[in-house]
Amino acid sequence: MSLLDPAERRRTGIRNQAELLAAAAPEPHTLLDASWRDFIFAEVWSRPQLDRRSRYLISMSGSARSQDTQALDGYVRGALSGGELSLAELREAALHVAVYSGWSVGGCLDAAITRVAAAMGLPPAPIPPIRAEPWDPQARIADGAAGFKNVMVFGGPPPATAYFEAGILNFVFGEMWMRTGLDQRSRRWLTLVGVSDSAASIPIRSHVHAAMASGNTNRAEMNEFVLQYAIHAGWPKASVVQGAVLEQAARVEKGLPFEA
Amino acid sequence: MSLLDPAERRRTGIRNQAELLAAAAPEPHTLLDASWRDFIFAEVWSRPQLDRRSRYLISMSGSARSQDTQALDGYVRGALSGGELSLAELREAALHVAVYSGWSVGGCLDAAITRVAAAMGLPPAPIPPIRAEPWDPQARIADGAAGFKNVMVFGGPPPATAYFEAGILNFVFGEMWMRTGLDQRSRRWLTLVGVSDSAASIPIRSHVHAAMASGNTNRAEMNEFVLQYAIHAGWPKASVVQGAVLEQAARVEKGLPFEA
Amino acid sequence: MSLLDPAERRRTGIRNQAELLAAAAPEPHTLLDASWRDFIFAEVWSRPQLDRRSRYLISMSGSARSQDTQALDGYVRGALSGGELSLAELREAALHVAVYSGWSVGGCLDAAITRVAAAMGLPPAPIPPIRAEPWDPQARIADGAAGFKNVMVFGGPPPATAYFEAGILNFVFGEMWMRTGLDQRSRRWLTLVGVSDSAASIPIRSHVHAAMASGNTNRAEMNEFVLQYAIHAGWPKASVVQGAVLEQAARVEKGLPFEA
Repeated sequence: MSLLDPAERRRTGIRNQAELLAAAAPEPHTLLDASWRDFIFAEVWSRPQLDRRSRYLISMSGSARSQDTQALDGYVRGALSGGELSLAELREAALHVAVYSGWSVGGCLDAAITRVAAAMGLPPAPIPPIRAEPWDPQARIADGAAGFKNVMVFGGPPPATAYFEAGILNFVFGEMWMRTGLDQRSRRWLTLVGVSDSAASIPIRSHVHAAMASGNTNRAEMNEFVLQYAIHAGWPKASVVQGAVLEQAARVEKGLPFEA
Repeated sequence: MSLLDPAERRRTGIRNQAELLAAAAPEPHTLLDASWRDFIFAEVWSRPQLDRRSRYLISMSGSARSQDTQALDGYVRGALSGGELSLAELREAALHVAVYSGWSVGGCLDAAITRVAAAMGLPPAPIPPIRAEPWDPQARIADGAAGFKNVMVFGGPPPATAYFEAGILNFVFGEMWMRTGLDQRSRRWLTLVGVSDSAASIPIRSHVHAAMASGNTNRAEMNEFVLQYAIHAGWPKASVVQGAVLEQAARVEKGLPFEA
Repeated sequence: MSLLDPAERRRTGIRNQAELLAAAAPEPHTLLDASWRDFIFAEVWSRPQLDRRSRYLISMSGSARSQDTQALDGYVRGALSGGELSLAELREAALHVAVYSGWSVGGCLDAAITRVAAAMGLPPAPIPPIRAEPWDPQARIADGAAGFKNVMVFGGPPPATAYFEAGILNFVFGEMWMRTGLDQRSRRWLTLVGVSDSAASIPIRSHVHAAMASGNTNRAEMNEFVLQYAIHAGWPKASVVQGAVLEQAARVEKGLPFEA
């Protein structure tokens, strides 16, 4: 059995950190700095079970919740520099994070995008409106209901309260998820971070189910998601998500629908 | 059926944003900026189901949790400029938020109040002590128990641990809720945001029940609360509160007490 | 019965605040400032049921979650000045917080430590690696399993997913908890804050059980923990922890193992 070499682990960490954040890795001054290098960049980001674009999305939404501007700037700079995400996609991601984690959290990501885009001298992304023409309010609700079904793989709620009508149907599914500037698979990772942060059982379990039942991702990637998410939310919050992945993957593989 | 016009929605958003934050609405540079205008200010804040004073309180406590200083400054400036809340009431609100969301979160709101009051040239609010004269420790606990009953509409816990005695009875209900500088209805919104953020089932459900059973608010306003709260906490966390509102409104309307 | 005197409470608060934060207590300008003095420093920190070192650890991890840099600087300065925690111990604490609350939260504490250490002119703490020699991956997992059992007082999970293998076994218990630079009792307080913040039932209840079953702490101290934690997380989140303490203390005192 081959041994793992701490010097090699350090070199891997330095190389990955520099590449992923598009900046030379600084010499660690503290134990925590060293753990970024030796654990997060050397051991987690080097795992082949999940692509870099997905890991960036998970890490951005995970860092935005904690208002970690330094980490956010690094991920945004890395994703833009490496071509993993475009400026227009990142702007869509910020709105998606706002819906699932709150506007202040989305705003923290949006501000990082603005800072990094300015530093890189990028021209602003256009803001395509989802509804440029006058619309029928009933049609918008109907669009939202169809969008809910498409995303969640089960039928949505009736417009019984403001939260459901003005929120879920009109805006979340009737506008935001319909936007074509960011693909559905990418939106899943942002959604999964948001529901996981919420600590709300039904949103966590229903979105974990839908992420796999839709074909956007699968059990293997979802297991990897849990590890990447744990870095940002801590192991206790991630343990709940790991439980949901094991439970819902079994249902999806048997063709069973989500059950609250 | 009349159509909704996106240009009109934009105008409504710009007008509401300027009025509510007491500053000219800036031209949106990003999709997220545009969503503040077109969704939050045009569609949510313009709904008549809940008064502005209540929405300010919900939005302040919701933004303080995410340490969103820019949003906080806007709400504080808007509330003070429009006369919806006085400086003295806002100082009471900051302490209330500290109790339900933690002192650091309350401190974030308090710092925003200090910044905005200084920018507006307001004289400091007095700090009326709740207990200016020496007091009997047993009487303070008894006052706390009576305060608990008044606020929660059911009897409080015995002083069995530090949390219950030094915390709940002596301070939360024996001092903080007894303060007369902010009315009980206003305190409800701050409390509801705090318990909703906590993700703790019994606090959420018992406070949703008490908010309606006390007569401080009702089902229609509580439904509107959920939408306003979702902006700050994201849709997943708000879904739990929506469930609690539907469940507890049914109990209150039948005259049933809260049941854990 | 002797009466409690508000002037004496103020004096106690000023004295404790100055001593605990190693800086003269400023004159309160707001109600919230006054509550730090009259409640947190006068009434909570003066309670003899828990030692200062433990309270510092609880307050640091509790404040880091809310990115409260001012409070963090005060606690770090106070703990270093009073000799309650060394710089090397604080660096270990920051990594521990990262694991249980997320790297951004740990980073917020680490940055405060860096600021205060620089202001105090302290030389940097060394960063002892946990594994300086090449290692066998299987042995590392086995070490992690043994570490899990030692900390949790029950057997750990099989390495079935990335979260369990690369996370829990390889890093959390195979590296982090094995570090000798911070004692197990101190690590308990940081862990308890992290699990309490997570709002995840099994982590909360299992760690509350393990903290007492290991002999690291006991029912009386755990009750005091809940009060100290409530200051940072708010009363609703702390109510869940209080429930877990009452439930698990009864089990531990009867010699019963943790049960999910």
